[in-house]
Amino acid sequence: MKRVKLTVAYEGTNYCGWQVQPNGITIEEVLNRTLSELLGEKIQVIGASRTDAGVHSLGNVAVFDTGTRIPAEKICYALNQRLPEDIAVQSSCQVPEDFHPRRCYSEKTYEYRILNRKIPVPTLRRDTYFYYRELNLENMQKAAAFLVGEHDFRSFCSVKTSAEDTVRKILSCTVERSRDSIITIRVTGTGFLYNMVRIIAGTLISVGVGEFAPESLPEILQKKDRSAAGPTAPAHGLTMIGINYGGGN
Amino acid sequence: MKRVKLTVAYEGTNYCGWQVQPNGITIEEVLNRTLSELLGEKIQVIGASRTDAGVHSLGNVAVFDTGTRIPAEKICYALNQRLPEDIAVQSSCQVPEDFHPRRCYSEKTYEYRILNRKIPVPTLRRDTYFYYRELNLENMQKAAAFLVGEHDFRSFCSVKTSAEDTVRKILSCTVERSRDSIITIRVTGTGFLYNMVRIIAGTLISVGVGEFAPESLPEILQKKDRSAAGPTAPAHGLTMIGINYGGGN
Repeated sequence: MKRVKLTVAYEGTNYCGWQVQPNGITIEEVLNRTLSELLGEKIQVIGASRTDAGVHSLGNVAVFDTGTRIPAEKICYALNQRLPEDIAVQSSCQVPEDFHPRRCYSEKTYEYRILNRKIPVPTLRRDTYFYYRELNLENMQKAAAFLVGEHDFRSFCSVKTSAEDTVRKILSCTVERSRDSIITIRVTGTGFLYNMVRIIAGTLISVGVGEFAPESLPEILQKKDRSAAGPTAPAHGLTMIGINYGGGN
Repeated sequence: MKRVKLTVAYEGTNYCGWQVQPNGITIEEVLNRTLSELLGEKIQVIGASRTDAGVHSLGNVAVFDTGTRIPAEKICYALNQRLPEDIAVQSSCQVPEDFHPRRCYSEKTYEYRILNRKIPVPTLRRDTYFYYRELNLENMQKAAAFLVGEHDFRSFCSVKTSAEDTVRKILSCTVERSRDSIITIRVTGTGFLYNMVRIIAGTLISVGVGEFAPESLPEILQKKDRSAAGPTAPAHGLTMIGINYGGGN
């Protein structure tokens, strides 16, 4: 037996998120079924980021154990032949048997993309959130800086969470505007709570339109109350960019 | 009566191109129907670039004549409320009654985007052409430079054309690679033949993989024979970027 790590890109539009659930098709389910067919054994992947319905990925991570003799590096090519076109495994490699994508230390990066202009752009509608009110970039940047560091992020966590410890560490949180009117919020951290990046995005948008002052962020954190922060921004603006485990994994 | 100019963005994935045809839904048809409903009169648009099935647009142009009292500038907002989400009119304005989007002098810009990496990216699959063989950017740039100027582009024109005069003027043709492995071929010209940009893209790809030398471009032009150039690159990599009519129109 060996443990194989997959780096998985997908467009989340047509999926009910990552995690297997009874009411619709999920990324995890498609990977399990396709890997089981390919390798001729029952495969069950363990995912790193259990993204919500509609969230996209360039580099989510999953591992599984297999007795196959196919070299780990080749599995991605064989797998992509069988996967639907909205899922593509970017790489596959062998990892130590005790490597666990959620329990090992990692730095995860997400991007939330806002199309901030008066009129929508059809080709961008699936992976940017169209928001027509003008956003003050500088204020969003000031606000984002307050989120960096180790904080109790309870205010930035869905009340549906089962997490007891809501302290997380954000390594960076930047906000940039590109030529094509896209504002990208890029967040890297060692762990995230349920809906955390979408609530950060929703709160920074509230700052951008002047509903919150940038300086109110420390107070929002301190309240440890979901209702203190802004709304949860829509899922389709969010992309899981990648996960760095260090040490070559 | 007044003549109104629309700047039209769309994702071409679900359309049989611009021009009304019996076998499927087109952008022109949706605009005609939606405008007629909105304005309560029979509207027939005239389009500038009759894009093929699967080709996208950020700034195609169409005009129509109307007796409406709605100010021309407001029509785009009312129209977007009724259009499907894969079509969005970016602006609307009044133009002189003799303004014709195909007959007036214009400079049109198209981009052909190639995703040049080993493995596809699901979120980019509709508006980039995935091409896994490594492309030599410098050679593509050298070849592109030969296309600039006034030439007989018969070699770069579908044999299905009805055009007799195949001389066209290319104002610029650049090839650039971005961080995310996208090679963008950007072409501006005062007129284009049927499939011309897609054949330019296919030919530059052939140069990129070494099937043609960059220096063979003048010879390909000179042959005035479609079979001398490379293949027609797939439609979904092509986007109509915009049309500049000068003089404020």
